[in-house]
Parts: sequence; structure tokens; C-alpha cells
Amino acid sequence: MDARVSTLDFAQWSTRQLAQVEQALSDWVPADAPAGLGEAMRYAVLDGGKRLRPLLVMAAAEAVQGRVEAALRAACAVELIHAYSLVHDDLPCMDNDVLRRGKPTVHVQFGEAPALLAGDALQALAFEILTPEGDAVPPAIQARLCRLLAQAAGASGMAGGQAIDLASVGKPLTEPELRAMHRLKTGALLEGSVRMGAACADAVDPAALRALNDYGAALGLAFQVVDDILDVTADSAALGKTAGKDAAADKPTYVSLLGLDASQMLAEALCMRAHGALDVSGLADVGRLRALADMVVKRTH
Amino acid sequence: MDARVSTLDFAQWSTRQLAQVEQALSDWVPADAPAGLGEAMRYAVLDGGKRLRPLLVMAAAEAVQGRVEAALRAACAVELIHAYSLVHDDLPCMDNDVLRRGKPTVHVQFGEAPALLAGDALQALAFEILTPEGDAVPPAIQARLCRLLAQAAGASGMAGGQAIDLASVGKPLTEPELRAMHRLKTGALLEGSVRMGAACADAVDPAALRALNDYGAALGLAFQVVDDILDVTADSAALGKTAGKDAAADKPTYVSLLGLDASQMLAEALCMRAHGALDVSGLADVGRLRALADMVVKRTH
Repeated sequence: MDARVSTLDFAQWSTRQLAQVEQALSDWVPADAPAGLGEAMRYAVLDGGKRLRPLLVMAAAEAVQGRVEAALRAACAVELIHAYSLVHDDLPCMDNDVLRRGKPTVHVQFGEAPALLAGDALQALAFEILTPEGDAVPPAIQARLCRLLAQAAGASGMAGGQAIDLASVGKPLTEPELRAMHRLKTGALLEGSVRMGAACADAVDPAALRALNDYGAALGLAFQVVDDILDVTADSAALGKTAGKDAAADKPTYVSLLGLDASQMLAEALCMRAHGALDVSGLADVGRLRALADMVVKRTH
Repeated sequence: MDARVSTLDFAQWSTRQLAQVEQALSDWVPADAPAGLGEAMRYAVLDGGKRLRPLLVMAAAEAVQGRVEAALRAACAVELIHAYSLVHDDLPCMDNDVLRRGKPTVHVQFGEAPALLAGDALQALAFEILTPEGDAVPPAIQARLCRLLAQAAGASGMAGGQAIDLASVGKPLTEPELRAMHRLKTGALLEGSVRMGAACADAVDPAALRALNDYGAALGLAFQVVDDILDVTADSAALGKTAGKDAAADKPTYVSLLGLDASQMLAEALCMRAHGALDVSGLADVGRLRALADMVVKRTH
């Protein structure tokens, strides 16, 4: 099965991937978009965030020996969608948050209307990056990546999850309802990252693809459980965003529903499930994916 | 050259195309998206608007003998982008408009946050519709359509134009500056509609493609000039939106810059330029495109 990747190897790999992704994002998010729009877009995207989604894309693409150019584009595209969702989520009519990644949020820095437009333009840019002219990425892969990203971002994915989240403030949810919300709100894009990475190969064994999808689903949910835990255990400085805001907003969370200990156990169990999916995938190079699952559960911000 | 299409033929053709587009939009904009999101999306899209962009897609696709399934998807996708842009444009932080197509705007009806999310989800849906699984649309056409739509919608297209518009309120613009703004804000998506229609064929003669692009550019600008004219000459009931709002907002318009008569002459001249481009396209079936250019300039709402 998998050739275990040491922590050191993973750190080196991750640093190398992230340098590539940062460079590509800096190249592709236009500085010269009109009337300050490019500035707001770059502010929203560059020099910030854990870049977990790009790493998932790159690791999944590696696991299936996917095409490098396609993977880099998919990694950037998914990060642009993530960045736009944060910009819109922070707006006064949504979470009304003023701090993100340790900096003023986009609407605080540039104004509400420019923030709205920057988010809109980032979403469009994601699909533009996925569809380069020329033969660097085969059209079949371009189309597949667009499909997966649109599904992950839209009404049956992230945007749908945000709508449930919005409607659920102050409402008691059951654990299955909470899970359904998070499966869409955060899970869809994380799972989508893994699917997009896997879509960078010309063809993948169906059983391996199912295993990767299971991995992505478990990891996506684990991420949210840990997010809820950190919302109560970490401080704003470590998070780079306002801590305790979900509790303050009376939003249902895993911690409010299950308590802190059970939430931590759930996160561990989901991490094991993600590892288990990789074990049965039949794929050799899944060490980075394994390390990413560990990183999600052990992160402190 | 072109076999002239009678006004009656055009009306019949247009009615038939629109029935198809309405049905497809109703099928594809999900009623069951979570937490009322689907309801807001359908409210924003269905039963409203002139559907000029879908007609341009269908007519351009016909002119190049494009694939029917691809054209229908492109027509719906471009309308979804248009619909999302209106939803976001009407938000309080943008134009703060309460009336659209004779109905309360989406945020008035559903609230600001749901309107923001509905717009976001509509943009994603546009790209999802362009990338169906299976072989109904060849991957190369799917990829090309996504590229053209993303370019038309993003920072170097519609969103960029909106950013200029936002930054130009109360500022005197020269005619070239005003033209640059409109070329992006409204022109990019109208021109994009023509390009997407032309992209529904497996291959198109480059000279014909250039001619269609010229047609789209002239028509896009004509549309905006007429919009500015109608903003002062029509009333809110005819427009289905608040009349005189650009003047009230001290936004630069063709009428404020050139006066009413010169604006009308400019619109006519652009219509002739659009016709001229069709004349030299070498394409046979351009009667619908010709009629659409006339419709844009002669419309009263």
C-alpha cells in the first residue's frame, strides 16, 4: 500500500506546493482590473489562509498521477471560490465580520459594494483559470473540473449550506441536521477539492475514485467539527478571525450539541475513517492525503 | 447573402426559442435547493426579462449551424449570469433598488443575505449547466463556453464594468471613458452571448467569427445607449424598474453627455454597424441576428 511519508517530507512537499500556488494566484488574479477591483480581489486572495483546499487538490492529483498543469489550475480555482465565499460571508448582511486572517475584512478595507463585486469576480475567475486556451489541459479535464467546482460551490454545495446556516441561527438542530448543513457549507468544497484533484488524471479506477470521495467526505466533516472546537478553545489572535462568534450568534455547533469531549472524539473518528478510505483505495501515493487528514484534526487555527 | 427574415417569422422564431429557454430554466434552476435558496433563485430568473441574451445565443448558434443542446445550455447560462448580476446590483450596498421587472427585487422579497446567496448560486449554476455529464455536448465546446462566459462575467468583463460604474458616480466622464465602462458593464455579456452562440459549432470560419464579434460589440454598445435614452424617456411602469434613477444618482450617461438627439443618432449608427458586420460575415442565416439588432434599438423598455 502506501509508502509512508515522513512529517519532514510532508512539510517540504507542502512548502513547495504552496509556493507554486501562491505564485500562480499572484500571476492569475489580475492587478490591473478596473477601478480598484483587482486590488480588492488580490487583497482577498493573496498572503492568507492555510491553503488547505489547494493542498488537497495537489495531493489527490499526485495520488492518481494527474496532470500537473491541470492540478495547479484546479488548486487555484478552488482557493478562489473559497476566498470569494469568505468575502461575501463577512459582509454586514451575512456574518458582519471585521477581522479575517488577522486583517480587516475586504468590505472594511474597500467598502461593501467593491467587496461584493470582488467576490463575484473571483468566482468567475475560478472558472476562467480552469479553461485555458491551447492544449495545456485537455478539454475533457477542463469540462470535468468546471462541473465539479460548480457543483461544489453552488446551491447543492457551499451556497446551499450557507443558506441552511443562515436559516438555522437560533434554531436547535439535531446532529443529522447539523451534519447535513456542514456537509454542504464547508464539506462540499473540501470534498470537491479531492474530487478535482482526482479529475486531473485522464482516467482513474472507479474503486479508487470512490475511496477518494469517502476520504474527502470524512475530511470535510472533520474540518468543520474541529472548526467548532477551535471556535471555543482558541483565541482570535490564533484564529486570525473573531473567536467565539458562532456561540455569540447562537449558531448551532458540534460543541453546543455534543459537548467538547465528544466533539474531539468525533473529529478523531472521522480522521480514522479518512485514513481507512485511503487504505482501501489501492492507490500507492496517498501519504500526503494521510498527512493532510492529520493536519486538519491536529490544527490549532 | 442573408435570406431576409420577415418580422412575422422573427416573432414566431423568437416565441419558440423563448418557450424552450423558459422551460429549460425552469427545469434547471432547482426548486429544491435548501432553506428557501431555490425559491429565491427561481424568483430571480423565471417569468421575467426580455431574454435578449438567450435570443442572441440562439440566433448566433443558428448562424453558424451550432449544436442545439449546446446553444440551449449557453442561452440559459448567460441568462443566469445576467439574472445574478441584477440581484446583486439591486442590493442596498449597490443601487439599492426595490423594483425590477415590475416586481419587488429579490432582497426586498427574501432579505439581503438570501439575495446575496441566490446570486452567488446562480453564477455557479451557469457553469454547471454548461458542463453536463455524458456526450450531449462535446467537452471542447463545454470548455470553450465556460471560458467565454467566465471572461464575459468577470473582472475584465461585467464585474469590471460594474466596478468602473461604482467609481464613476458623480464624476464627469468623457465619451471614450463612458464607452469603456459600458463595453464592460453591459457590452461584455451581450458580446459574450454572440460569441457563445458561435462557439456552439465544432468549427467556424475565422472571418465569420470576427464579423460576429464586431456585430456583438456594436449591439452591446447600442443596447446601453438605448438604455440611457429610455431612462429619461420611458416611465417606471414601461421599464419595469425605477426610471430616471441614473440621472437621480448623478451617474454619467450617454444622454447626459451627448444629449437626447445625438444619443438617438448614435444608437442608429451602431445598429447600422451591426448590420454591416453581418453583411460581410459570409454567413447565410443571419436574419435573426439582424432582427435582434433592430429590436435592441427600437425597444421601448
